[in-house]
Amino acid sequence: MHKLNNDYLEDAVEDSMPFAAQGEVNTSLPDLDGTKKDLLGVTILTTDQQKFTGGNWEQTVPMQSTSKIISLMLALHDFGKDRVFQAVGMEPMGDFFNSISQLESYDTSKPFNPMINAGAIAVSALIKGHNNNNRFERYLHFLQRVTDNQELHLNEQVYEAEKANGARNRALAYFMESVGTLITDVEEALDLYFRINSVMMNCDDFAKVGLFLARGGRAPDNDEKLIPANHLRTVNAIMMTSGMYNSSGRHAVEVGFPCKSGVSGSIIGVVPGLMGIGIVGPAIDEKGNSTAGGALLRKLSQDLELNLFGDGHIYGRGISGGV
Amino acid sequence: MHKLNNDYLEDAVEDSMPFAAQGEVNTSLPDLDGTKKDLLGVTILTTDQQKFTGGNWEQTVPMQSTSKIISLMLALHDFGKDRVFQAVGMEPMGDFFNSISQLESYDTSKPFNPMINAGAIAVSALIKGHNNNNRFERYLHFLQRVTDNQELHLNEQVYEAEKANGARNRALAYFMESVGTLITDVEEALDLYFRINSVMMNCDDFAKVGLFLARGGRAPDNDEKLIPANHLRTVNAIMMTSGMYNSSGRHAVEVGFPCKSGVSGSIIGVVPGLMGIGIVGPAIDEKGNSTAGGALLRKLSQDLELNLFGDGHIYGRGISGGV
Amino acid sequence: MHKLNNDYLEDAVEDSMPFAAQGEVNTSLPDLDGTKKDLLGVTILTTDQQKFTGGNWEQTVPMQSTSKIISLMLALHDFGKDRVFQAVGMEPMGDFFNSISQLESYDTSKPFNPMINAGAIAVSALIKGHNNNNRFERYLHFLQRVTDNQELHLNEQVYEAEKANGARNRALAYFMESVGTLITDVEEALDLYFRINSVMMNCDDFAKVGLFLARGGRAPDNDEKLIPANHLRTVNAIMMTSGMYNSSGRHAVEVGFPCKSGVSGSIIGVVPGLMGIGIVGPAIDEKGNSTAGGALLRKLSQDLELNLFGDGHIYGRGISGGV
Amino acid sequence: MHKLNNDYLEDAVEDSMPFAAQGEVNTSLPDLDGTKKDLLGVTILTTDQQKFTGGNWEQTVPMQSTSKIISLMLALHDFGKDRVFQAVGMEPMGDFFNSISQLESYDTSKPFNPMINAGAIAVSALIKGHNNNNRFERYLHFLQRVTDNQELHLNEQVYEAEKANGARNRALAYFMESVGTLITDVEEALDLYFRINSVMMNCDDFAKVGLFLARGGRAPDNDEKLIPANHLRTVNAIMMTSGMYNSSGRHAVEVGFPCKSGVSGSIIGVVPGLMGIGIVGPAIDEKGNSTAGGALLRKLSQDLELNLFGDGHIYGRGISGGV
Repeated sequence: MHKLNNDYLEDAVEDSMPFAAQGEVNTSLPDLDGTKKDLLGVTILTTDQQKFTGGNWEQTVPMQSTSKIISLMLALHDFGKDRVFQAVGMEPMGDFFNSISQLESYDTSKPFNPMINAGAIAVSALIKGHNNNNRFERYLHFLQRVTDNQELHLNEQVYEAEKANGARNRALAYFMESVGTLITDVEEALDLYFRINSVMMNCDDFAKVGLFLARGGRAPDNDEKLIPANHLRTVNAIMMTSGMYNSSGRHAVEVGFPCKSGVSGSIIGVVPGLMGIGIVGPAIDEKGNSTAGGALLRKLSQDLELNLFGDGHIYGRGISGGV
Repeated sequence: MHKLNNDYLEDAVEDSMPFAAQGEVNTSLPDLDGTKKDLLGVTILTTDQQKFTGGNWEQTVPMQSTSKIISLMLALHDFGKDRVFQAVGMEPMGDFFNSISQLESYDTSKPFNPMINAGAIAVSALIKGHNNNNRFERYLHFLQRVTDNQELHLNEQVYEAEKANGARNRALAYFMESVGTLITDVEEALDLYFRINSVMMNCDDFAKVGLFLARGGRAPDNDEKLIPANHLRTVNAIMMTSGMYNSSGRHAVEVGFPCKSGVSGSIIGVVPGLMGIGIVGPAIDEKGNSTAGGALLRKLSQDLELNLFGDGHIYGRGISGGV
Repeated sequence: MHKLNNDYLEDAVEDSMPFAAQGEVNTSLPDLDGTKKDLLGVTILTTDQQKFTGGNWEQTVPMQSTSKIISLMLALHDFGKDRVFQAVGMEPMGDFFNSISQLESYDTSKPFNPMINAGAIAVSALIKGHNNNNRFERYLHFLQRVTDNQELHLNEQVYEAEKANGARNRALAYFMESVGTLITDVEEALDLYFRINSVMMNCDDFAKVGLFLARGGRAPDNDEKLIPANHLRTVNAIMMTSGMYNSSGRHAVEVGFPCKSGVSGSIIGVVPGLMGIGIVGPAIDEKGNSTAGGALLRKLSQDLELNLFGDGHIYGRGISGGV
Repeated sequence: MHKLNNDYLEDAVEDSMPFAAQGEVNTSLPDLDGTKKDLLGVTILTTDQQKFTGGNWEQTVPMQSTSKIISLMLALHDFGKDRVFQAVGMEPMGDFFNSISQLESYDTSKPFNPMINAGAIAVSALIKGHNNNNRFERYLHFLQRVTDNQELHLNEQVYEAEKANGARNRALAYFMESVGTLITDVEEALDLYFRINSVMMNCDDFAKVGLFLARGGRAPDNDEKLIPANHLRTVNAIMMTSGMYNSSGRHAVEVGFPCKSGVSGSIIGVVPGLMGIGIVGPAIDEKGNSTAGGALLRKLSQDLELNLFGDGHIYGRGISGGV
């Protein structure tokens, strides 16, 4: 049994950091100050209001694909489950996150799920607003409430890089237009998608999103219920089956609680009822997941017995003193 | 909040039975006595040794694909995780359970996971034994211990039907031989696979398997630990991401705990630490899952708050009096 | 044996016209004056300078995919075979002309051949010119020389329709950019592609292109050799294996000489050494080929013994008096 | 212009032999006496009854896939075009000859064409006979008439090797059974397929088959018409679009007349009205075609102007003195 405290987390980070050597930093993102390969940071926020940190937890990186769960929550809020899942499926895919073949092969040509690029473009296109500025403002406002951080904002350098490297996402979006999946203007949908990927966050911010999903969708400042239970379960379950790209199956076995990764090396983790986890480790593997971050999650899951599919008991038993 | 008792289960079965009309009984199986389209039965066994039943819980059906979790446990026991996952992946697939294209497209030509036919053939081929009789005996003995039911045995009619309708499985197995995935004799591997699919079980038996996975892999008769914690988590996690064929993503959203279905309309459900669930409802949808059984699982999950990805609390809160 | 003359052609058109009922006019093209479903026209131009016509041979339609052979000739002229076939393959595909899966699956992500949309976009991007106006001028000038028709020009309505319905082509082009296949500016490449598809031609014009390919690439006015023998064989051979979309195999069996079709219902036919054929029949099948035009080609091939794969003799024996 | 004689052919073989170094001999075939990597032989038989040979033309090798055109002719004879093309398509495929994905993806699950393994299994299953011995006897008798060689017979060693290495073909056949494409007994169909691949032939024999297809399907001994014109065109056309596996498009460009290759390094060539060509060159490329044989075909096509898609004239002009 392990005591969950800052010392434990520092040790866990130190143990996991060597796995950074197995990955590479995503070169399509701008060389932001301090984004080095062997960085690793973590913040854990518990539902009983404790906070623990380890390593380079203050390092900011772009949200990248971790934004997909924010836009999914907002689209569910704006349009409800039926409409959202007309535009996108909820099945794991078994192929790389930017696959276009799978888009063509799937029955109705809707993307497999909201965690892959095509699905996230289709979902973010559902966010209500009278123009893209307004839609992004609503996204940012929601994100600021969830994280209780009014400072979050779009990073122009990242946004420009997203646009400059957007060919594959353009292909996905125009394909969806051609089969009638994407009914809004393609360039506008892409522009919004590029913006929401370009907000900088640190481990605290990522952990706040995890905590929001772990404690019933309540705002951190005033406990207001921002998202109903039904939508929350939907988001957590889809993170479980599809959140770690085409390593989601392995992640379920080895970590065993819902997570969402981004190619910036960020990971949001959700242990329902117990804690939110935010990780930054910029070196990623060929599937797009932080290598050191993955090692850290495996360690946390094992030490603290956070695996939901565990050994004949309800998870979380491994934390001495409890959470 | 709901009281979990027989009356509640009878009502739940009655509510769910109409969904049988949306499915069809699998005609490739022999017309076994009493396997009618509108049957639905359920047994729930809790970790604190209570038993509840509803509907046609005594109806037996062939194990079919529910056998896949038994053979996975046995192969993990016999060879360990590393060897088993050399032969098969652990990623959900996004295609039908008998897809052969996915077999050819996947990097190393190993099947995506042990819950699809190709994967289960590869896994069952790992079960130790000096011949097929011996391998099947070991399988049956393990199944009898897990279910505490010495009466379980192979049904010859089902076995003959499996062999007669085995063309697709033969295609999968010979393909795996041709790419070096399946190293044992193909016809022997298929014969064993057909046998293990042909054991008849009722809801009690299926629930016993679920309970075994929910309470730490301990034998029901003497609490002996038959399977280590690590393997148990592996099996439960793979059931979560791939257990309901290419409806596993939807199942995670709507039900939210590990299940495995068979085309006989059987379902094994696992709520870790709380209960095992056995369901029989022979009418299946085009993906191979019991339609009425699925409705019943959704109802149980919602009423008893069994969804692992739930609303800011640890699951199981919906049961009055507790389990 | 048949006498090839205008009466014969009128009869052949009349026999073939009923097949128009099996097709539909492509509705993504503007409703140009007189493009009716049951139109059918043909012009045959022989290498010994005879001309025969039948039906609505004066009807103009947009070039659409028949432009693909003009841009292939021009790209071969501008860059040579090695460079062109770095950008595109020369294998028939076995899938629909706008398939994007095949693009992703093919080894090097280059399009299968220059007769499918992706391949034609990649090929036309190779046409030399200091800007798109200049490139299109060169295309048009070459087309005017080949057809000996200075009146040919871009139809603005068709061009606008191409742009408005260009989502799938945009998806293909951006995908190629994302894998490094398309190295020019995507929007510029698409704009040129849309322009070259938008020239209006009648059966005489289409037959002129066929004759050019049948008589050694010599200009009709002064017999100047515009294209070397090697390139000419390349174009004719690729038309044979891939010119009729994913009906090219059937077309080889039933017609047996190189043709290229467009979704406007146009077809260019080449009988090497003997004749060029131009056909307009706007009703197309689900693969994109003129239904009545296909029937007419089958009849011409059989009556005049034009099938290159024929019965123990060299083709063209069926024409009384010879050509 | 070239004189077609034995000296010319010897020189052509010598020029082409170095290309053998780019290939490998198929190791799944038994190490038959003298089948060495750098062998190359050719026989040309003209429609005006001349015979020319070069290199190791007496070397025998198993027919392998060159048998596919014999079984196609026999099936067309026994059942007619409509029935045969219910069982198999006639489109080139764009994938490797033993692809199983394409089998699953194609609309009706029938194989793309009779030149790929799945298609040839389905076609040979149509050969009439009251048992497999009788079917193979009819095949062999037809082959002996076509080649005018009563000595041809099954090689037991090759047949055993075919059976021992038959896993992929078994997979294809059982897949076809599972989707209803193959209606005969699978093991019987495979056994017949293995037998017809196992006849040993030399360049003379292969050239005889080519000549048969080049001169109207007439028996070499008494000019009896064994196959009607319609079927002959069908076979030649399918060889043109699909005969060289997924190099058929390149072959059409570079050689330009119908050929069929086998993984034993054999090639049958057909120049309609002019000649049949038989080639043996055991070193094959990764697509299954003889590397030196391909070089020799390119040289013959260019020197003798045999390309059907040629430069403004009817093919065959390059032979001095004529054929």
